[in-house]
Amino acid sequence: MDNKIVTPRTLPGFMELLPKEQILFNQIEDKIRKSYEKYGFLPIDTPIIEHSEVLLAKAGGETEKQIYAFEKGDTNLALRFDLTVPLAKYVANYYDKLSFPFRRYQIGKVYRGEKPQKGRFREFYQCDIDIIGDGELSIINDAEIPSVIYNIFKELGLGDFTIRINNRKILNGLFSKIGEKEKSVHIMRIIDKIDKIGREAVKEEIEKLGINSKEIMDFISIEGNNDEKLYKLEKINIDNDILKKGIEELKEVVKYIRLFGIPEENFKIDLTIARGLDYYTGTVYETFLNEYKELGSVCSGGRYENLAENYINRKLPGVGVSIGLTRLFYKLNELNILNVEQNSIAKALVLSMDDDNKRAIEVGTILRKQGINVQIYMENKKSKAKFKYADKMNIPYAIIIGEEEKNTGKVSLKNMETGEQEILEIDQVILKLKK
Amino acid sequence: MDNKIVTPRTLPGFMELLPKEQILFNQIEDKIRKSYEKYGFLPIDTPIIEHSEVLLAKAGGETEKQIYAFEKGDTNLALRFDLTVPLAKYVANYYDKLSFPFRRYQIGKVYRGEKPQKGRFREFYQCDIDIIGDGELSIINDAEIPSVIYNIFKELGLGDFTIRINNRKILNGLFSKIGEKEKSVHIMRIIDKIDKIGREAVKEEIEKLGINSKEIMDFISIEGNNDEKLYKLEKINIDNDILKKGIEELKEVVKYIRLFGIPEENFKIDLTIARGLDYYTGTVYETFLNEYKELGSVCSGGRYENLAENYINRKLPGVGVSIGLTRLFYKLNELNILNVEQNSIAKALVLSMDDDNKRAIEVGTILRKQGINVQIYMENKKSKAKFKYADKMNIPYAIIIGEEEKNTGKVSLKNMETGEQEILEIDQVILKLKK
Repeated sequence: MDNKIVTPRTLPGFMELLPKEQILFNQIEDKIRKSYEKYGFLPIDTPIIEHSEVLLAKAGGETEKQIYAFEKGDTNLALRFDLTVPLAKYVANYYDKLSFPFRRYQIGKVYRGEKPQKGRFREFYQCDIDIIGDGELSIINDAEIPSVIYNIFKELGLGDFTIRINNRKILNGLFSKIGEKEKSVHIMRIIDKIDKIGREAVKEEIEKLGINSKEIMDFISIEGNNDEKLYKLEKINIDNDILKKGIEELKEVVKYIRLFGIPEENFKIDLTIARGLDYYTGTVYETFLNEYKELGSVCSGGRYENLAENYINRKLPGVGVSIGLTRLFYKLNELNILNVEQNSIAKALVLSMDDDNKRAIEVGTILRKQGINVQIYMENKKSKAKFKYADKMNIPYAIIIGEEEKNTGKVSLKNMETGEQEILEIDQVILKLKK
Repeated sequence: MDNKIVTPRTLPGFMELLPKEQILFNQIEDKIRKSYEKYGFLPIDTPIIEHSEVLLAKAGGETEKQIYAFEKGDTNLALRFDLTVPLAKYVANYYDKLSFPFRRYQIGKVYRGEKPQKGRFREFYQCDIDIIGDGELSIINDAEIPSVIYNIFKELGLGDFTIRINNRKILNGLFSKIGEKEKSVHIMRIIDKIDKIGREAVKEEIEKLGINSKEIMDFISIEGNNDEKLYKLEKINIDNDILKKGIEELKEVVKYIRLFGIPEENFKIDLTIARGLDYYTGTVYETFLNEYKELGSVCSGGRYENLAENYINRKLPGVGVSIGLTRLFYKLNELNILNVEQNSIAKALVLSMDDDNKRAIEVGTILRKQGINVQIYMENKKSKAKFKYADKMNIPYAIIIGEEEKNTGKVSLKNMETGEQEILEIDQVILKLKK
């Protein structure tokens, strides 16, 4: 062969998995999807490419720099950088055809041209849910979101986890009261980094803004369990309506979270949770795996006033969260806590001891009709090579068709892990593999 | 509100569905995925963006004009236009880590900047399977592919369908024999259009190439059922090795197709199936829905000599097919043969007759724990509005919590279609909804 060979390479910052990893990735995605559907969220799918003007109606700063933008003909296009802006566009676009509260989930790839570095991706999956109200939206929704998160992380079995909850009105009210309303977003961003940079650094950074940090630091240092924190917050002597409203909302949310049956150890009021985006206006969430806190928050979000103000003259408040699946998978895999090696799509590999595959095809077809995932090995190789293939592919069972099996109509079933082998009727094999 | 409002619009040629349509789209995708897995195909996922140089290693002509290409920093990027080139890159890239035959499926979006017109999409889903051999690949694989197609279209329930099969060696051998080897690709492309333009136009176009069309037209007009056609082909008096090899392969494929249990009425030797791409070298397939022939082929593919010759110095023969899901869905929906109106994610809507949602949350949580998809209506509205919501959302059952239900611990279950309503214990509701 004398073709011009181009080095087959994938762009840096773009995840590409081996099949055994992909199977696991898909299983996690599937569990997330099923949990979302269990709560009645509806699927939507939006284009990856949008008009630049539409996609960037609100964006600015960091986001805009990272965007993949280009022209096709005389149209300015851009790749979506999250699933929230496309949701806003979607809801505004189909407002008349949707029923509110509109509960949607979307799982899809988004694009950000970040500096490529380990564990950072330029193409990654987000798994979002949002509940959008028309004009208003009950606070109970703010309590149902943690219930979805709880359900998913229980399902994923990644050990203990904590959903940390706060309400931005509380912090905003506090900043307002101490005369630093204009600097709210700045202060929020600093507090938001507390897990990474520590309490002392937060204090210093706030002081650098020319703010006396004492009241803020005292406030975010309020300790105790959920009820104790709520009690202290209610007793606090800060006269500000927004702060009071925030405390009231937080109390309601905690009450309903308990009604949704989330165990006390899985959620925690945390007054340092601020979220960087100025978009959020009420309840905010972050989720931490207790055994892998270094991952940072694996599921975050919150309540916002108005989803689609850039597209439609209607007040559409909402609440939602997002799971960054690509990053989560990468980190879990890196920590070696995923069982990558034992994955297989096929439950059994049907193989002939000789070159006549007739009976193997018949047997494979019968099993498939029963809904069992089966591969038939059809290449002309020595039986040793066939078994090696089953082994490398992690296929749990080999179904062996030899001379005797052809004559009796039975088959040999070999457990590839234990090496055990038994001669069985097809019906017995079906029962065994369906388990 | 006085924001700058940007008109929320989606690009032409980009499909965006309402939730009730999306549910159905996802169900079809899910059936395809499950069928692929039943045959032991492994999932892979590749980036939507690739290095231009890698993606276009082979492309040329029409494809290249339609590509979405752009620069980011100093890198030339392009969006994938199919899933075959990314597969070739993937197999070359991970050659040492894969087991052959490598059977993979991939379902994902691809991009082609075609002229936007009704039913043509610039972003669309392809659902591909391929079986790749290392050096060689048994002809039995060519017969298993139609078995997968059969399984999927049975599952989808779109009425009768026919998988049309041919072998390009037969046509190539014929053209070679009549001294028109150089024009093979041209003639193939003309014959490929026979369903659209008719027999007479094919004849004319061939003659325009300066070729006596008689032998070709006689050949592709061979009639009869599968066995009759095979018999006539074997008796034919054309002395050409490639043609003979093609006939032999076709015979083998038909033999094995029958072993895979595909009914005779679902596959048909069709000597006019050529496929436009010069990529194919043996068996080729097209699939037609008999009641909706105007859709054209809904699943096509074939056998090729060498998947990744542009990326690796190894012979990797393969066979595969692709379903253009976006176009298929669009056409089926347009023909009104999809049951779009009756789709719902939630099996039941739990609603309170008053503003106290405590019991509704408890009941909803119990049902979700049983794996039942449930939405709890939590907004502060009149009960009439709540029922109307269930109705508009096509949710089949309402679970009603009134004063009496709160006292007795039972609930009322209302069938939203028939209007029937009964008071039941929660356990009875679970049994009923799990059915």
